[in-house]
Amino acid sequence: MAKKIGVVLAGCGVYDGSEIHEAVITLLAIDRAGAEAVCMAPNMDQLHVVNHLTGEVAEGEKRNVLVEAARIARGQIKDMATVKASDLDALFLPGGFGAAKNLCNFAVKGPECDVNPEVARLVREVVKAQKPLAAVCIAPALIARVLGDEKLAHKLTIGTDQGTAQALETMGAEHVTCPVNEFIIDEKNKIISSPAYMLAGRISEAAEGIEKTVRVLLEMA
Amino acid sequence: MAKKIGVVLAGCGVYDGSEIHEAVITLLAIDRAGAEAVCMAPNMDQLHVVNHLTGEVAEGEKRNVLVEAARIARGQIKDMATVKASDLDALFLPGGFGAAKNLCNFAVKGPECDVNPEVARLVREVVKAQKPLAAVCIAPALIARVLGDEKLAHKLTIGTDQGTAQALETMGAEHVTCPVNEFIIDEKNKIISSPAYMLAGRISEAAEGIEKTVRVLLEMA
Repeated sequence: MAKKIGVVLAGCGVYDGSEIHEAVITLLAIDRAGAEAVCMAPNMDQLHVVNHLTGEVAEGEKRNVLVEAARIARGQIKDMATVKASDLDALFLPGGFGAAKNLCNFAVKGPECDVNPEVARLVREVVKAQKPLAAVCIAPALIARVLGDEKLAHKLTIGTDQGTAQALETMGAEHVTCPVNEFIIDEKNKIISSPAYMLAGRISEAAEGIEKTVRVLLEMA
Repeated sequence: MAKKIGVVLAGCGVYDGSEIHEAVITLLAIDRAGAEAVCMAPNMDQLHVVNHLTGEVAEGEKRNVLVEAARIARGQIKDMATVKASDLDALFLPGGFGAAKNLCNFAVKGPECDVNPEVARLVREVVKAQKPLAAVCIAPALIARVLGDEKLAHKLTIGTDQGTAQALETMGAEHVTCPVNEFIIDEKNKIISSPAYMLAGRISEAAEGIEKTVRVLLEMA
């Protein structure tokens, strides 16, 4: 039986959804390792829609996180509310602003952020079941909030950005500086994190860290 | 100087734009080979918007091909109308229905299709300049139309689908059957094609053919 790796998507596009390169590199690495990706996203409106050509918010436009994430998943995607930790062997959260705008509101509220209830529930379930979890780019901010709320000591990286690192520590994480092509392991909670596009200047840099992260995640699963 | 490979995008999502996996795998393969991807798309409305969760057309919704393609390109994208063959060392066209709905209207009109004027112009320029060009998935249909209109004998693959292969031949191509992990080269016109998601059942299958195609394209550039 192939190992089932949940992949939590947050829309489709770096500025208002999942970072597309990170998500696709993750899906490819999982498939090449002989495991099965189980894509999922919360069924909710995005915080907003960003025109990725201009970088401006598209006023008045509305899009649904699950519907847009289905673009990355070629339609093969589940509403997160229907997924339990017992359905999975491991969980992976790619980044992109959607992880900090839709899955939680870290982009707006920083360390005072709230996490989408279904996302928080599944992360808690996976950690309690001692199944491994990986988060890249800005997604570790969400993990810091959930584990901080549970008073669980934990170790994460978002790369080298001082302000973001400080925000993670405010939520209860120990932040560890990490280069783009490496990852950090929290052995106790089985959490792996890697900076990806928090630091990557090109797609191959993001890919190196993500491919290593997927490899370790599958070894731990 | 890194070789510049134009990547022609058609939106963002398999059912109404570029196939996202194919596009990202292409960008990664180009970057890993030390070349530079130059993303571009026509500045025009999509044929329509498809809800990728349900597969249904989202009635009344409008999206712009260039604006949506910018999601795959992380904002680094040019309006095709501004790109000339002399700016590039080679050209790559990923697939997805957008290649047959936006770049041309093959999805609607079959072998009677018309190609977007800027797309047709750049393909003609690249072929005339004897620079190599690759097209995967359904994108070879567009190439058959442009080269057929120029009365240029040429050889392409879209995999094994009989109906689509016949339509390409009607437009003037010689269709060659090809497995998902391989590619076809038309040495005279320097055109490489590979089936990708016309045949792929999983992302790693699409990746194998696309990675080989990018490698050969760069050797020929």
